[in-house]
Amino acid sequence: VDPALLAQAQAKLDNKTKPIGSLGRLEEFARRYAAISGTLEPSTWKKVIFTFAADHGVVAEGVSAFPKEVTVQMVHNFLAGGAGVNVLANHVRAEVLVVDIGVDHDFGDTPGLIGRKIARGTRNLAQGPAMTREEAIAALEVGIELANGCKKEGIAMAGTGEMGIGNTTPSSAIVAAFTGRSVADLTHRGTGINDSALNNKVRVIEQALAVNRPDPADPIDVLAKVGGLEIAGIAGLVLGCAANRIPVVVDGFISTAGALVASELHPAVKEYLFAAHQSVEIGHAVMLERLGADPILDLKMRLGEGTGAALAMGLIEAGVKILKEMATFEEAGVAEGEY
Amino acid sequence: VDPALLAQAQAKLDNKTKPIGSLGRLEEFARRYAAISGTLEPSTWKKVIFTFAADHGVVAEGVSAFPKEVTVQMVHNFLAGGAGVNVLANHVRAEVLVVDIGVDHDFGDTPGLIGRKIARGTRNLAQGPAMTREEAIAALEVGIELANGCKKEGIAMAGTGEMGIGNTTPSSAIVAAFTGRSVADLTHRGTGINDSALNNKVRVIEQALAVNRPDPADPIDVLAKVGGLEIAGIAGLVLGCAANRIPVVVDGFISTAGALVASELHPAVKEYLFAAHQSVEIGHAVMLERLGADPILDLKMRLGEGTGAALAMGLIEAGVKILKEMATFEEAGVAEGEY
Repeated sequence: VDPALLAQAQAKLDNKTKPIGSLGRLEEFARRYAAISGTLEPSTWKKVIFTFAADHGVVAEGVSAFPKEVTVQMVHNFLAGGAGVNVLANHVRAEVLVVDIGVDHDFGDTPGLIGRKIARGTRNLAQGPAMTREEAIAALEVGIELANGCKKEGIAMAGTGEMGIGNTTPSSAIVAAFTGRSVADLTHRGTGINDSALNNKVRVIEQALAVNRPDPADPIDVLAKVGGLEIAGIAGLVLGCAANRIPVVVDGFISTAGALVASELHPAVKEYLFAAHQSVEIGHAVMLERLGADPILDLKMRLGEGTGAALAMGLIEAGVKILKEMATFEEAGVAEGEY
Repeated sequence: VDPALLAQAQAKLDNKTKPIGSLGRLEEFARRYAAISGTLEPSTWKKVIFTFAADHGVVAEGVSAFPKEVTVQMVHNFLAGGAGVNVLANHVRAEVLVVDIGVDHDFGDTPGLIGRKIARGTRNLAQGPAMTREEAIAALEVGIELANGCKKEGIAMAGTGEMGIGNTTPSSAIVAAFTGRSVADLTHRGTGINDSALNNKVRVIEQALAVNRPDPADPIDVLAKVGGLEIAGIAGLVLGCAANRIPVVVDGFISTAGALVASELHPAVKEYLFAAHQSVEIGHAVMLERLGADPILDLKMRLGEGTGAALAMGLIEAGVKILKEMATFEEAGVAEGEY
């Protein structure tokens, strides 16, 4: 982003009727959002959250507390408006768009569902590559094309979300592959597995890394071998939003795995994204550190779907409104401070 | 609040289509809000932020970066809708009500201003008591009466806010009086004073405590001798909201000084309040610890007015909507997890 625009946005904030810098991170959100959007009067009106759904062959290893069928059931719940992300997106006046990028189910012509299925789920990454390189690239392109569509539709801000039973397993594998940190330090309980299931999950991820030997210098290799289709879609969305100058709000652990793949491919995307919240998943802080991103919220959430992104979008929009709507010292006839 | 209602609210949350506890603190907000309101279907529709304005004799000691006239100027800015709290309250669909509880100015018949002036500012607390005991009680009663009015008007949730040049000084004095902690550990830069002004501010507060000898076992003595009229109004609002079972969202440093006075008078109020955010002011964490309150946001804000309360109200409302609007496993036909 253009440093001159960042400085101009901060100068505009400094004329508002408040002590310099007193709105803290709201000012950071406003400044960055303006610089990404390329204007000191950016819109926040049209907001969209993409919830990418996909299945994971690795559930055969017993890594999740929920059965695989829940991915399909939750897609219907999203479309009916009953899920957490629907409630929170409505609250911040954002739209939820549900993308089937790899669910192991034939949805036919389900109204409202964006059908972009690359495969009926990944293969079991504990036994071999989750995807072919071609599948991973195709799934990335889905995200990029959705971001291009946002540009055409005048979407001001995009959020990421996902649904896929088993998808904290590839997310931990991805951050382990890029950082070389121990799997046990990056792997947590997902939807709520017990101690013995957690030990098994760690073992499964260690096996996946040993079997596949993903190359951390080749982010698409990592994505294909130990990733997921929804994670690839999110990585593509992040890349596409950056290319189209659309601020993109990255949800929690799984979404950040996607953002990490995007930033390993193209580090400049870091300037275009906002980290919505600090997830309960223990590997998330390591991802955020590698991204250089400071999470906006810490509400001990671990649901995914885009729920954290929705809440953070509301706060980013609040910052932008400060930039656009607050009175200046001159307009309000208020005396300035002497520091 | 009724522990049975807390348990019923959590049971209702546990039937929603999400892993148990996965919405973290949003579930805490929903549970507490329901228990305070006395229903599992609480309203969040009508939200009000009270911004109490007052002046402080202690500004004669050079404790603020802004001239005293700014209190009056900002009252007009609030009424015109140009201040930070106006923008953020609009964003969360809350109303801002501005209360003159002690500004050193004759506003006459200013439209929109709630005139409840107890005195034209406090006296200089470095030289003697800021208020008489009678003034402090009268200002507390203003807040209590406003809370009673909320009950009559069907206000679902109230927030606190304030404007008063110099008011971080009495706030630090109050927390020092109650905790006995060193003034230097509780005193910060307010609107943005430099190092030498900060040293002077610490000295002024130490002098105020030495001259007045407030009795920490008598919260009204502390409030009268080293407090402020807007702080007293906030303390009264917190007491009145608790008595009327209205969830009350306490803004930053100065507001929390008011909440602290209320909780020292009646510890049960702690169950009825939400701490909006962690302020940059270094004494704030000490106040929150004494209140046993975990702040909702940490956005490095230090503006006051009710700006943090506005943002937190939006998040609390989000939690309540989860309780009310999300589908259950049964409604959505989603399988439950096995933990």
